[in-house]
Amino acid sequence: MPDITQYLKEKQFLVDLALKDCLPTELTRPSLLHEAMRYCVLNGGKRIRPILCIAAAEVFDKPAAEVLMPAVALELFHCSTLIHDDLPCMDDDDLRRGMPTCHIKYGEANAVLAGDALMIHAFQILAEYGNSKLSLELARAAGSQGVIAGQVEDLAAEGKEPNADLIEFIHMNKTAILIRAAVRMGTIAAGADGQELESLTIFGEKIGMAFQIEDDILDETSTDEVLGKHAGADQEHHKMTYPAVHGMDNARKKVRELTNDAIALLNTLSRNTNALRSIAEYLVRREF
Amino acid sequence: MPDITQYLKEKQFLVDLALKDCLPTELTRPSLLHEAMRYCVLNGGKRIRPILCIAAAEVFDKPAAEVLMPAVALELFHCSTLIHDDLPCMDDDDLRRGMPTCHIKYGEANAVLAGDALMIHAFQILAEYGNSKLSLELARAAGSQGVIAGQVEDLAAEGKEPNADLIEFIHMNKTAILIRAAVRMGTIAAGADGQELESLTIFGEKIGMAFQIEDDILDETSTDEVLGKHAGADQEHHKMTYPAVHGMDNARKKVRELTNDAIALLNTLSRNTNALRSIAEYLVRREF
Repeated sequence: MPDITQYLKEKQFLVDLALKDCLPTELTRPSLLHEAMRYCVLNGGKRIRPILCIAAAEVFDKPAAEVLMPAVALELFHCSTLIHDDLPCMDDDDLRRGMPTCHIKYGEANAVLAGDALMIHAFQILAEYGNSKLSLELARAAGSQGVIAGQVEDLAAEGKEPNADLIEFIHMNKTAILIRAAVRMGTIAAGADGQELESLTIFGEKIGMAFQIEDDILDETSTDEVLGKHAGADQEHHKMTYPAVHGMDNARKKVRELTNDAIALLNTLSRNTNALRSIAEYLVRREF
Repeated sequence: MPDITQYLKEKQFLVDLALKDCLPTELTRPSLLHEAMRYCVLNGGKRIRPILCIAAAEVFDKPAAEVLMPAVALELFHCSTLIHDDLPCMDDDDLRRGMPTCHIKYGEANAVLAGDALMIHAFQILAEYGNSKLSLELARAAGSQGVIAGQVEDLAAEGKEPNADLIEFIHMNKTAILIRAAVRMGTIAAGADGQELESLTIFGEKIGMAFQIEDDILDETSTDEVLGKHAGADQEHHKMTYPAVHGMDNARKKVRELTNDAIALLNTLSRNTNALRSIAEYLVRREF
């Protein structure tokens, strides 16, 4: 197993190439729409979801090249949610990954439509891949009982009294479900099922929860420059966060606990899971 | 062949039942989101796209019940685009099918998210149906080189000089592509292909174009009460319309010509296409 930084860099490079290739060029009519789509996707994202999908497939000896399209679909969907989240009627953010957000650069209407188009493109790529099970995984994780549910309750929770059940629901749906889907999609694409799929499902859920709590922690403790977006935005928006509900010490403890539990699950598989383990560790050690 | 009013009523009833059944109830968390989704879908729409899908399948003796899910997916996607089109940053409409639009009733953020959720739900239902070809049809028709392209150029054309090429591009993408996809999806689900699929593809495209020109005509000549939305909205928004580009007489002539061409194509099939023919006629005789 090469060191994790090298591993992530290699996969990120591969995913970026595939993303660049799968999106229509700016020369395709309507130019401005395709420019906006590419701007919002090809901006140096960490590509955590596609890399998890690839790493899960590799556990079952399925090469990265053969799950690149489901991996890419995950990232396209993720980017579409970021565009809509940033809209004035939602989180009203003007900075994302260190750059002006989509609606700042292309106007609100084009931002709504670029988000829609990326969402549809994710399902188009999965349809071309031809495995309906994977489309179903993404749709269920993404929809009104998944990511969108998390968004709705996240917005509705603004300014409300801290509540442990509610923050659990929000984190689970807003973030953990899609990370879990990424791990599941790689596993399913590789043909694995039964107990192995079950263990990796819980692994994905746990690192997803840890990832979102870490996000809350970083928002409170980091700077704009390091994050590439406004640090402290959660407090400004009166967002409900894990540290706000449980305190900063408990938040850090929970991140550690979830990550340890996730890694313990990997140990129950008689497979080489070094990459997944390193990613789990990386997700909670990252600075942005 | 029963008379067309009866046929449409029966199919509409069936589609409405299936729509009601396929959407999570208001009791499903988040309640408000599911309420908004149901409000925007279960509002007495004409269900033209699902009915075309069903009628096309019936040409090849595939019963309605067996293509109900692809039919429903088409309507869910269509409703999602209406919600986003009505947003303040887009057409800023407060009336739809005689009722307050989604953002008026549920707020802008929930309207963006309800639209997203319906879009995803369309692809979820197709994934459950399990025929990737149909998911691909919807995605290609819907995406950045389909419906979304039409929307982008429609908005960009506001206030611009009337232009024949541009109005053709907008109508083709904003409307005709999805109506064509409805006919194709029913045909493909029924297992038809080759020359028959080809002929029905062009049939769908032509009635789709006729439908949109008729829409432009009605917007200019009808009333709020009859349309269930603001008549004259196109002019208020300085929309580019077919009558504005070619004149009202030519618009009416074009509608007739497209419909006749479409029906002539049906005659080349050695099949019972009475329902499709009647729908084509109905689309340009309707009052709203």
